[in-house]
Amino acid sequence: MSSVLIRNVTAVTMNEAREILDHVDLRVEGQRIAAITPTGEEARAEAPDRPRAKPGTVIDGANMVAIPGLINAHTHAAMVLLRGYADDMALEPWLEEMIWPTESRIVAEDVYWGTMLATVEMLKSGTTTLCDMYHFFESAARAMRDAKIRGVPSGVLLGFLPEPERRLRQAMDFCKEWNGAAEGRITVMLAPHALYTCSREILEKFVEAAADLGVKLHTHLAETEAEVRRVQQEYGRHPVEAMDEIGMFDVGLVAAHCVHVTDEHIEIFREKKVGVAHNPTSNMKLASGSAPVQKMLQRGVTVGVATDGAASNNNLSMVEEMHLAALLDKVFSKDPTAVSAYSALEMATRNGARALGLQDQVGQLKEGMKADIVLFDFDKPHLCPRHNVVSHLVYSAMGSDVDTVLVDGEILLHKGKLTQLDEQEIMARASEAARRITTAE
Amino acid sequence: MSSVLIRNVTAVTMNEAREILDHVDLRVEGQRIAAITPTGEEARAEAPDRPRAKPGTVIDGANMVAIPGLINAHTHAAMVLLRGYADDMALEPWLEEMIWPTESRIVAEDVYWGTMLATVEMLKSGTTTLCDMYHFFESAARAMRDAKIRGVPSGVLLGFLPEPERRLRQAMDFCKEWNGAAEGRITVMLAPHALYTCSREILEKFVEAAADLGVKLHTHLAETEAEVRRVQQEYGRHPVEAMDEIGMFDVGLVAAHCVHVTDEHIEIFREKKVGVAHNPTSNMKLASGSAPVQKMLQRGVTVGVATDGAASNNNLSMVEEMHLAALLDKVFSKDPTAVSAYSALEMATRNGARALGLQDQVGQLKEGMKADIVLFDFDKPHLCPRHNVVSHLVYSAMGSDVDTVLVDGEILLHKGKLTQLDEQEIMARASEAARRITTAE
Repeated sequence: MSSVLIRNVTAVTMNEAREILDHVDLRVEGQRIAAITPTGEEARAEAPDRPRAKPGTVIDGANMVAIPGLINAHTHAAMVLLRGYADDMALEPWLEEMIWPTESRIVAEDVYWGTMLATVEMLKSGTTTLCDMYHFFESAARAMRDAKIRGVPSGVLLGFLPEPERRLRQAMDFCKEWNGAAEGRITVMLAPHALYTCSREILEKFVEAAADLGVKLHTHLAETEAEVRRVQQEYGRHPVEAMDEIGMFDVGLVAAHCVHVTDEHIEIFREKKVGVAHNPTSNMKLASGSAPVQKMLQRGVTVGVATDGAASNNNLSMVEEMHLAALLDKVFSKDPTAVSAYSALEMATRNGARALGLQDQVGQLKEGMKADIVLFDFDKPHLCPRHNVVSHLVYSAMGSDVDTVLVDGEILLHKGKLTQLDEQEIMARASEAARRITTAE
Repeated sequence: MSSVLIRNVTAVTMNEAREILDHVDLRVEGQRIAAITPTGEEARAEAPDRPRAKPGTVIDGANMVAIPGLINAHTHAAMVLLRGYADDMALEPWLEEMIWPTESRIVAEDVYWGTMLATVEMLKSGTTTLCDMYHFFESAARAMRDAKIRGVPSGVLLGFLPEPERRLRQAMDFCKEWNGAAEGRITVMLAPHALYTCSREILEKFVEAAADLGVKLHTHLAETEAEVRRVQQEYGRHPVEAMDEIGMFDVGLVAAHCVHVTDEHIEIFREKKVGVAHNPTSNMKLASGSAPVQKMLQRGVTVGVATDGAASNNNLSMVEEMHLAALLDKVFSKDPTAVSAYSALEMATRNGARALGLQDQVGQLKEGMKADIVLFDFDKPHLCPRHNVVSHLVYSAMGSDVDTVLVDGEILLHKGKLTQLDEQEIMARASEAARRITTAE
């Protein structure tokens, strides 16, 4: 069993007691956090009959701040291929003239390299788990497995594609094959894209399939005013009420966006334990609006943070996303006390884990949890003076301050460099794919 | 005369024709850009009687994107000392209980080291000019001179301090001594803090002094609804109208914030050539509101971008600030086409220069302009694939992507490292100052 010792670090644990521990050692054994002890005390395996861990790797945590790995609760990873391809446009021409025609040229291999590029970007900026929704989900899952990141790929259906039932069966087969894959790092969901792109009939089948397979649903919900109007016309009710009526909340659901929701809808989210994925950058860039995050948090809804796809962001830095999660609701609600720095960090770690159903595995630095750990290098002018580490993580830091990343106890990034992936090759392959799909034949 | 050749770079010129030139050489001689020529052609000094430049330094610009140095149009640089000291509070308790009591313990030496730290942070994230407003402005000016950044320190008056007239005289003396200092890198302004902190009488004296000295005014304007109400009570009119009546716009003025303004006020800004400094992060964090940037740009108002002080931001990255300038107005105006990536970059460079009256010196990559040049390293996963360099600079980049910075033709940062300043010493000195001022005696 491999072992890693991170010495003399400041640990922002995100535990129940909200402990921030200075000068501690984090001992990792195998996939898990084995001990968190004050630096100087011997960190020993407690059970004498357990095999003594190899001496393993020692990482100097001086000037570093450790947090649980960031959790990106909703993205379309392979859309990095379209990063910067079309900006500053209204949603409909953006999708219909730029994004969809280009996506129609994407093949499975493109999604593999796109997801690899996204994974590289995410690891380098401290994200250790992503919840993904994209075409060719098996290619996405392969990339996550190969990159050793923790991933929740979704078997997706865009309802306007032909043969939706065949596609649902494919998605179900995918779920059966991949749930728990890659030593448990991969779990899966079923993802009917949205109310306005899927028929009611197929949505009901998704609910049934999710119940059968014991997986959650992942969808878009109440992102734009136009969506609300469209669903209102078709279902005679608001999208939240329509989903509730279809039974989508009863099997467990991750809902991306939830911008245009009322107090009553928030109460439904709480009661039905809907996991909300808040996408502040995307909601700003596409002018969708601002989700009532503080209200949702106050009422006990589980809200995670997410980047959405790079085409509407245009990066996948969860550090930036936490920052905007803390800022956006303040200015919209006219309340500078809304969404504190701590709340933003909690959404991006512990709450994100709960939204994805991974709360027993990740989201906290705690003995027994999976060792998904991120070290930020605080020896930087923009993180000086060090009045408050949580404030600095949320309001001052950049993704590039991430020095070291462990997923499942394995060091994937150290001193800002990937230890296992060939970044240059991945960038070259993804650039080549991007060139091809954006060049009309 | 020193010379620098940046070879084979992509230059985002920000010139009239909006040229973005691939594969060009930028030749710098002394303080200025001497030539921009296609790579491969000989870049020679045109005048045969001019002394031949030393061979000088050659920088490989492959995979780099060059822009004119970023211009931070409004900050309180030394407030980095209070970075993260108090967050997520309402404006008034934040100022009255946390910021002002602490600031009352600040001495001149603290402002020197605070401004040095701010300058280090700014250079490392591509800012080459700052317009500053803070106590102990002479210490701030000394720091800017020593750090070799381009600076516009302001002789400031916080009106509730005793003896405002003596302070105005000090500010005027400061202006006389420092205008054009540091080989022209330092120009100055007079800065009455705001309408609600200065008496009408002293504001009129500031106008007179600015006219006498031929310097601009720098102030806060229409930042919060509370300010508008307060000024309305005192002056019987909106802050913009009150300033106009006092004559503050007639001597040239940089107005920070301008959040709560109407179409009529925007027309006054255009007519009186007011330079607006837009502070999106600060306006979000303090829940002040969103300035109508797109409207101002459409009507021909000169709008720059600014970080405000680090206490309300909490960093000084203009890369992040451009990003938010592009995002914030979109979501508030419900228009995803508002404030394009190009507009955001233009505000942060060329428009910022015009707002500060420096448009003949900086803000464009152009022969004859001062050589304030920033190179971004685009060999990064989050800037891949390279569909659009301007989009990537505004929506995807981080301050840490800055590789090289020249100010006045001198290389101050290369390969991400400061060439002239001792970053560790500056961080240590600033941390020491911060500890002292935040520890009540």
